[in-house]
Amino acid sequence: MATSRDAVIPQADRMFEGGTHKLDVWSIFTPANVPADCINLGQGFMNWAPPDWIREASHKSMDQDMMSNHYAHPRGRPRLIKALSEHYSPSFENLVAEGRKLQTDEIVVTAGANCGTYAAMCAHLQPGDEVICIEPFFDQYFATIVFNGGTPVYVPLHPPKEGKQVSGSSDWTIDYDEFRAAFTPKTKAVIINTPHNPVGKVFSREELTELSKICIENDVLVIADEVYDCMVYDDKEHVRIASLPGMWERTLTVGSGGKSFAATGWRIGWLIGAPALTAATLAAHTKIVFCTNAPMQEAVAIGLEGAKEHKFFETQLQEYTERRDILCSYFDKLELPYTKPDGSYFVLVDMSKIKVPDDFVVPATCKGRGKDFKLCWWMAQTLKVVAIPPSEFYCEDHAGIGENFARFAFCKDPELLHAAGDRLLKLKEYM
Amino acid sequence: MATSRDAVIPQADRMFEGGTHKLDVWSIFTPANVPADCINLGQGFMNWAPPDWIREASHKSMDQDMMSNHYAHPRGRPRLIKALSEHYSPSFENLVAEGRKLQTDEIVVTAGANCGTYAAMCAHLQPGDEVICIEPFFDQYFATIVFNGGTPVYVPLHPPKEGKQVSGSSDWTIDYDEFRAAFTPKTKAVIINTPHNPVGKVFSREELTELSKICIENDVLVIADEVYDCMVYDDKEHVRIASLPGMWERTLTVGSGGKSFAATGWRIGWLIGAPALTAATLAAHTKIVFCTNAPMQEAVAIGLEGAKEHKFFETQLQEYTERRDILCSYFDKLELPYTKPDGSYFVLVDMSKIKVPDDFVVPATCKGRGKDFKLCWWMAQTLKVVAIPPSEFYCEDHAGIGENFARFAFCKDPELLHAAGDRLLKLKEYM
Ligand SMILES: Cc1ncc(COP(=O)(O)O)c(C=O)c1O
Ligand SMILES: Cc1ncc(COP(=O)(O)O)c(C=O)c1O
Repeated sequence: MATSRDAVIPQADRMFEGGTHKLDVWSIFTPANVPADCINLGQGFMNWAPPDWIREASHKSMDQDMMSNHYAHPRGRPRLIKALSEHYSPSFENLVAEGRKLQTDEIVVTAGANCGTYAAMCAHLQPGDEVICIEPFFDQYFATIVFNGGTPVYVPLHPPKEGKQVSGSSDWTIDYDEFRAAFTPKTKAVIINTPHNPVGKVFSREELTELSKICIENDVLVIADEVYDCMVYDDKEHVRIASLPGMWERTLTVGSGGKSFAATGWRIGWLIGAPALTAATLAAHTKIVFCTNAPMQEAVAIGLEGAKEHKFFETQLQEYTERRDILCSYFDKLELPYTKPDGSYFVLVDMSKIKVPDDFVVPATCKGRGKDFKLCWWMAQTLKVVAIPPSEFYCEDHAGIGENFARFAFCKDPELLHAAGDRLLKLKEYM
Repeated sequence: MATSRDAVIPQADRMFEGGTHKLDVWSIFTPANVPADCINLGQGFMNWAPPDWIREASHKSMDQDMMSNHYAHPRGRPRLIKALSEHYSPSFENLVAEGRKLQTDEIVVTAGANCGTYAAMCAHLQPGDEVICIEPFFDQYFATIVFNGGTPVYVPLHPPKEGKQVSGSSDWTIDYDEFRAAFTPKTKAVIINTPHNPVGKVFSREELTELSKICIENDVLVIADEVYDCMVYDDKEHVRIASLPGMWERTLTVGSGGKSFAATGWRIGWLIGAPALTAATLAAHTKIVFCTNAPMQEAVAIGLEGAKEHKFFETQLQEYTERRDILCSYFDKLELPYTKPDGSYFVLVDMSKIKVPDDFVVPATCKGRGKDFKLCWWMAQTLKVVAIPPSEFYCEDHAGIGENFARFAFCKDPELLHAAGDRLLKLKEYM
């Protein structure tokens, strides 16, 4: 544990000697580090604000209800818990079959999805426990596991066969034998992220059924990271892992108000699951942050309550679909192979064809990292478009799988996406 | 580590067998558990809202600056960091002496003071490290230490001699030999809370100088929890531990926007300290919650920027002083000995004289706890006033010191304090 944590945290003593820890990809490609005139398709925040009607009503709530400025119940404000129950219950097949809604003790509001997953690990891991991650994986998982005494174990998704211009969810495959082989007596949990960042894959019912059978065989906890559940395109089916047979009692489903309402800075997330799982997680979360910020809990509750009337999720989905198609059209023009996302707001593009000039000098932060770090740094400096190098989403042994790709976020308005696309067309000169 | 964490987290498997963990005091005395017509002087939130002028300007910022709804820089929004530097720099004697202000890399914005302390422990503790806490202590420290692999070591403040009706800060004494004896080669850090919750003690310059000498001798990190730094009464001097000789490079000072602006639910805190200490803490905090909620960072920045013009802190201090005096006047009438707080918004009252009727039945949650749990539960049920039993703020071995007291919060408006006082006068019948 000590050694792995040291990889992430610059220990005070060592800072003065230059530090040995690896800087995370977000700090390297943060807006302050790249040319000011870059178009940022790196970090996944929207370049628009959350809806007016939510902000207006939430301002009122802060002004009229004193308690929306004070400590919330550690589990979450009752209004938000009720709104989550109303909104989510119909999407869990098991609850529909039982003819019931989520109960208060099946929900915990958290400081972003991020702290929700952190609290779940804190609550459920014992030192030495192993947690299986499917690569590429959201890089925060690493510290979330390691800081809580666990050891990550990696199973890669296999990328599409070469030569295909446009791939889809089913072209990224999981080898069930590899998955099964990753389990040991120490395995405590598996994290499954669908819709998937950065691939955009939405796992099929068949895939999830296979994975869940193996999780049940091995009696493990499943963290179902479904923060992109509002961004599933072309009527693709999004199956909730928790609702598959035998899974409810072992699954914590993670959601994000930031992703759902274009409000990544509000830091409201939630966990949904059986009372025993959420009780432990609530106890941990209460110790880590005490409670989640109250005003933005109110805002998210208002958003969920008003979503139907404002046709919010339908409209948002239509807009994201359009944005996805705009961005992808440029990769079509460039003939750069990519995976057309069925979900999330990321496009993973195969950049193998691009030749970064030999004499291009990368900064120290990108040295010793995958060649995708070099490529993305060069793109930022030269083409003024920021993308994220996905080798960060693999363990060191498997980083080679990610090196050929770059991740582009399309949670940006059409004008900006077209502007970025126009800049990207210059890539033609480097093939 | 495993065993201690189990004391706080109801492990999933065990939940079904009834659970063995101790419920925390906040969950026992939460508004939902006590009679609805109680006056709540328990948990430390204000029964008023943060100032209009802050809320109004923060609504505008959310509406006009899209980015105040999106991921903030993990260190904090630049506007808040600047405002913190302006506000805090003059209160650090060492900075004044150096003629300089706090730099960006000496500040980290956190998800409440709570997550700030948690991140500091996560960053700086290695498994097996010991952390010294001065009893009584803010109960969240326990999990903050234990969850991060540390072991708490306790040194008690000695309570006032019996027979004194009104005690003060200097009547709660620390035995420097006891303090020195608590250090071992494993000691990594000391937490010092001034102004102090629940005692209301503001440590004197002499006391802090002694304590800091011992900390320097033992080369440890100091967490200076100064969240009540805006509530120091009667011109008592509040000395910042970090500004004492030899302390800057080893001290992280913890502050709270919630305490400062009557906005406990906004969950904005901060840590101030030397770059090496804050860099490690920032790395940990980034992994735990990624970043702190952006809209309320903006609100706190607005509050700090406008505080002078609105004479905010002066007025607030005057109001707290009045509130303290109202509450204390009832204990004078009752002739119940208490410590008149020099700081914070808590009064610790010696309740030894009160006799809870023998036949009063306490619920399971209070069984096996200090007799203060019984007394506080009875007060809530019978007198309809909620106070907090402070044996929760001691380790099991020392809980007996806290058992005679009850903690009353006076962060409530004068009307409510008078109403509570009137109810408390009935205690006369139980002496
Ligand atoms: C897969 C995944 N999970 C969780 C998160 C974190 O969500 P939040 O911003 O609500 O903490 C992200 C954010 O990028 C993500 O991509
Ligand atoms: C001594 C002390 N430190 C820290 C905190 C937590 O402050 P925040 O609400 O900013 O997390 C409290 C809150 O009661 C406290 O009493």
